[in-house]
Amino acid sequence: MTAPRLRFVGAPVARPTPILDATRVRANIARMAAKARASGVRLRPHFKTHQSAEIGDWFREHGVSAITVSSLRMARYFAGHGWQDITVAFPANLREVEEIAALAHAIRLGLLADDPAAVHALAGALSGLPAGSGRAWVKIDTGLGRVGVRWDDQSRLSAVAEALRSQAGLAYAGALTHAGHSYGARTRAELAAIHSESVARLRAARDLLDATIGRPGELSIGDTPTCSTVESFEGVDEIRPGNFVFYDLMQLAIGSCRAEDLAVAIACPVVGKYARRGEIVIYGGAVHLSKEALADGRASGEDAAVAAARPGASTYGCLAIDPGAGLGRPEPRAPVIALSQEHGIVRLPSDLWDAIGVGDLVLVYPVHACLACDLHAAYVTTDGRTIPRLTPSGA
Amino acid sequence: MTAPRLRFVGAPVARPTPILDATRVRANIARMAAKARASGVRLRPHFKTHQSAEIGDWFREHGVSAITVSSLRMARYFAGHGWQDITVAFPANLREVEEIAALAHAIRLGLLADDPAAVHALAGALSGLPAGSGRAWVKIDTGLGRVGVRWDDQSRLSAVAEALRSQAGLAYAGALTHAGHSYGARTRAELAAIHSESVARLRAARDLLDATIGRPGELSIGDTPTCSTVESFEGVDEIRPGNFVFYDLMQLAIGSCRAEDLAVAIACPVVGKYARRGEIVIYGGAVHLSKEALADGRASGEDAAVAAARPGASTYGCLAIDPGAGLGRPEPRAPVIALSQEHGIVRLPSDLWDAIGVGDLVLVYPVHACLACDLHAAYVTTDGRTIPRLTPSGA
Repeated sequence: MTAPRLRFVGAPVARPTPILDATRVRANIARMAAKARASGVRLRPHFKTHQSAEIGDWFREHGVSAITVSSLRMARYFAGHGWQDITVAFPANLREVEEIAALAHAIRLGLLADDPAAVHALAGALSGLPAGSGRAWVKIDTGLGRVGVRWDDQSRLSAVAEALRSQAGLAYAGALTHAGHSYGARTRAELAAIHSESVARLRAARDLLDATIGRPGELSIGDTPTCSTVESFEGVDEIRPGNFVFYDLMQLAIGSCRAEDLAVAIACPVVGKYARRGEIVIYGGAVHLSKEALADGRASGEDAAVAAARPGASTYGCLAIDPGAGLGRPEPRAPVIALSQEHGIVRLPSDLWDAIGVGDLVLVYPVHACLACDLHAAYVTTDGRTIPRLTPSGA
Repeated sequence: MTAPRLRFVGAPVARPTPILDATRVRANIARMAAKARASGVRLRPHFKTHQSAEIGDWFREHGVSAITVSSLRMARYFAGHGWQDITVAFPANLREVEEIAALAHAIRLGLLADDPAAVHALAGALSGLPAGSGRAWVKIDTGLGRVGVRWDDQSRLSAVAEALRSQAGLAYAGALTHAGHSYGARTRAELAAIHSESVARLRAARDLLDATIGRPGELSIGDTPTCSTVESFEGVDEIRPGNFVFYDLMQLAIGSCRAEDLAVAIACPVVGKYARRGEIVIYGGAVHLSKEALADGRASGEDAAVAAARPGASTYGCLAIDPGAGLGRPEPRAPVIALSQEHGIVRLPSDLWDAIGVGDLVLVYPVHACLACDLHAAYVTTDGRTIPRLTPSGA
């Protein structure tokens, strides 16, 4: 008799729950911290992925003292857990200026600006504070096309620089970018090219800002694909990757990590088996996994034959094979092919049909760990210990 | 000078927040309640869409006393708010049988079964309770292909019926289906055809169950597209629509509702304007709206020319035009074209470019109201009153 190959027998949870392999998490942190040290750059990790005070402490063991978040709510949570140097890497929300000013009074707070009028509004709110209470990073769009001043938009760069010059409560920190177009890459060569181009564009923009403001600014970059694959960060001052703490199927598809680096999967009870369709149904839907999908039907190395059988299909995750009491590794032949609010449909190959029954737990590797984890208020480790995190963003 | 046409000037929220038009919500409830009464069927509305005790009370005003939910957590929440007759329209999760038994002891609890072994496990857990404490609906798959016994799978129907016969704590209630394949329809004729076929298949399955069990069972159906468009529910005992309480862009695309029935939109602060791209960026991302998409690039009546300009593109929502202090109506020319964790990118036509600025609020009509609202812990009405709801599912 062979061992069950899909059944998770670690933490005996009853409802969809993110399960952490703490050893893998710590190894992911140690690897990135060592790389930053070797390059002589500050690691200012993005905590939006884990949003957990306890996991934050694991970074402190590597000398990390400065962090990145993406909302004021997260900034307040981590400030309440002793973090004194926090950058909110999201355009300053002018509807929260009073809360921003209160936090800037308490900690060293980094803010993002890409608009002259927003700089004035922000500086006005911070004007009563000691000089440099708020630190403004000029957000530069080096190719992603989401937020920031385009690196080659000299008139807007000059206008933002003029607005920043000699503001009392808001000190110029430097130029910051997120080269998120790296998520479209699939080879190390592509990632290296995006990294080089992005840093060169960021530096050009920073030099222009420095000249107008009359003070030297730093360079801050950060995205998990390039930070995971580029060997040296020469020429920049800090890196802000976040997802690397857990990684996920999207990062695996990009080539940012190995299957054995994946550190979180969602444990889901099996609630139905449908032999005619070769499908099981899990308690684990869009509200537990998020509807982030890999659209090309080739999740986590799914082979060409499997992908061809489902042209154009989306994949919302895949099961772990051989988890035992751990996380196992992704099984691309067992993809999550559909999600409704609470249900997930998983296709199983015939050789795994008898490996699982109604009432068992399976593990689902998420496509995008940040979004899947944001749906939960706590993690459970493979050995059953609960690790709280900030409650879901809208809570 | 013309009035601002995209600016929401109702409830002055600071962060992404679902805004309710309570008048529209009450009208949607009244319309469905009247229709159920006219057909002589029980309205057992699905509360997974709103998950709010206060909104639940609005149904009571129409004589509703029985409800549907999709998790035990929701069932406990509504039982705690005085609901005594609740069906959990999700396959019974065998990892929660103790909690199920406790709840069945307190209220009239409906459960779903489609598997003989699961029936036995469930009946075992309920065996110590008074007869009929738990009521078992046999879930029938009438064409959706998600959960349930296929209507034509006579051997499995017989096996489930055998398992259900003479269980002490688990009484046979009838046959239940969700014709969710109605979401693929785009005309009333298609919806009517799906409804007729689904009811006929459900009745055939029920008759077979009745014969084996030796007692008459009821018929329960429910999905918003057919319940909103079919005129009469003749021949069934109860209907369980849920989404109709709010409706959303998906329902509008199907034809289940009119634009003026849309009762919820997410207020989002504008945090960036990028004239070169004709795009604004909002504080409102996947963690506030969900990544549910309309994949054909034709959200909410988007015209062919607009759709042709973005072939194959996904739409994650669209802005409300002329909201003022209300919800306005959907503007398909202002679609949400991309979402990251906290950011949304909205494309604007040139004639609306000057209608909105950084720091203003816009309203985003969600593609799928159930998923968007599940990300939040409260609603705010257009006039600024907070209505709490159950916290997000993973919290």
